[in-house]
Amino acid sequence: MDDRNSIIETAHELAEAARGAALALFRQPSLDVDNKAPAHFDPVTAADRAAEDAMRAILARRRPQDAILGEERGRTEGTSGLTWVLDPIDGTRAFLCGAPTWGVLIAVSDANGPIYGLIDQPHIGERFEGGLGLAHVIGPHGTHSLRTRAPRPLAEAFLSSTFPEIGTAEDEAAFRRVKDRARLTRYGMDCYAYALLAAGQIDLVIEAGLQPYDIHAPIAVIEAAGGLVTDWTGGPAVQGGRVLAAANPAIHAEATALLNA
Amino acid sequence: MDDRNSIIETAHELAEAARGAALALFRQPSLDVDNKAPAHFDPVTAADRAAEDAMRAILARRRPQDAILGEERGRTEGTSGLTWVLDPIDGTRAFLCGAPTWGVLIAVSDANGPIYGLIDQPHIGERFEGGLGLAHVIGPHGTHSLRTRAPRPLAEAFLSSTFPEIGTAEDEAAFRRVKDRARLTRYGMDCYAYALLAAGQIDLVIEAGLQPYDIHAPIAVIEAAGGLVTDWTGGPAVQGGRVLAAANPAIHAEATALLNA
Repeated sequence: MDDRNSIIETAHELAEAARGAALALFRQPSLDVDNKAPAHFDPVTAADRAAEDAMRAILARRRPQDAILGEERGRTEGTSGLTWVLDPIDGTRAFLCGAPTWGVLIAVSDANGPIYGLIDQPHIGERFEGGLGLAHVIGPHGTHSLRTRAPRPLAEAFLSSTFPEIGTAEDEAAFRRVKDRARLTRYGMDCYAYALLAAGQIDLVIEAGLQPYDIHAPIAVIEAAGGLVTDWTGGPAVQGGRVLAAANPAIHAEATALLNA
Repeated sequence: MDDRNSIIETAHELAEAARGAALALFRQPSLDVDNKAPAHFDPVTAADRAAEDAMRAILARRRPQDAILGEERGRTEGTSGLTWVLDPIDGTRAFLCGAPTWGVLIAVSDANGPIYGLIDQPHIGERFEGGLGLAHVIGPHGTHSLRTRAPRPLAEAFLSSTFPEIGTAEDEAAFRRVKDRARLTRYGMDCYAYALLAAGQIDLVIEAGLQPYDIHAPIAVIEAAGGLVTDWTGGPAVQGGRVLAAANPAIHAEATALLNA
């Protein structure tokens, strides 16, 4: 299947380009200008745009028939039925703080949702890949298969959310019903939490207020590893909003029951 | 100064040994046994002990005159006036979740406190080193000097704490007085937050309930980079407890005023 190989090769070329653009500003003193500069200079947005533009240039050359949906440059129409869904830097605050939990998100989606995705952490040099028959992470310690955790009760489960203050007051109350029964809750991991769920390290990720480009790549990677990603009611998550990622159907059912209690 | 070089070489040898012992269990399926095993097997403690024992074996050979204070094996007396203060895995919960924010902490302290320290993140392959004339990080993207941020108002500052629920109710209220005025608060970073403070990425770290082995290495690295580490009242932090790490005296003063308001 030639198109499969083209998609995979193109995605890795995009990820390499985004890595370079993002690392050129990560932990650089130039990032420190944002409270000194006179006007509205935003260096993270600069890194975001540079990374997205680099990815779009590659797509224009290699996959001009495909549509693009990117955080920074919006939507470009295509004719193939496939859309590249790009978030050049997911986790802006982590990036600003120098933390290694932001990532580059690259997905390929058709009318039914993501069919393939990458979650790339450039500083660590770690790339989580799922879909089109693949489910593995390539990183500084080699290549390893991705497989989500086997079912265990929520009382023994690990939960992640980026912020303790999640969404509206109602959202936060729903989140706390799950959190209060989980064994362990971690904050601050942005897209890296989805990667750890795919890698079998944690059981649940709960977020609110997501955009489509925040979640397409995680859906592809997590589904390829055996997990599931829905909205909080169990419906499709491709539009973002309130998102629940789960290692298996059993823990997903336990979490949705509490989120909607 | 031969002893200086011996200390530095020994510390790196310890860090290498601890890396190997910790990575042998990090993200390994064997870590997943803890809710299936019959009795009291605790694989993180196993990794902790293996790492500390490996470090103690090196010290027994290279620096038998020095004392040791380790998280897992307690205190070993010495005759030199120097103590190696070791936390083989700081950030047990991060380690369990597969997050890259735990670390190996190695410090050398005399009667006045730490004179040298390492914060090592084995998965990333990143080592923050400070004291005895050194202040740099060695990592996957080369070696870079460590220097804390210049003063800026708290309203523009980045704050980190491992848990949103910090210490007692009184501790949490004090923490919130700072948090509510900071520009950005990140959670979940364990010892990696001190490394980012030394690297000029964030302005403040506030923690409670620390042990001496949690803070000796961060003190050495942060002081070498130009920052300061005290308890919440501005006194010595070498005993752990409530700890405030700050990029510079101005932001330290602003934080202590609010913590003690």
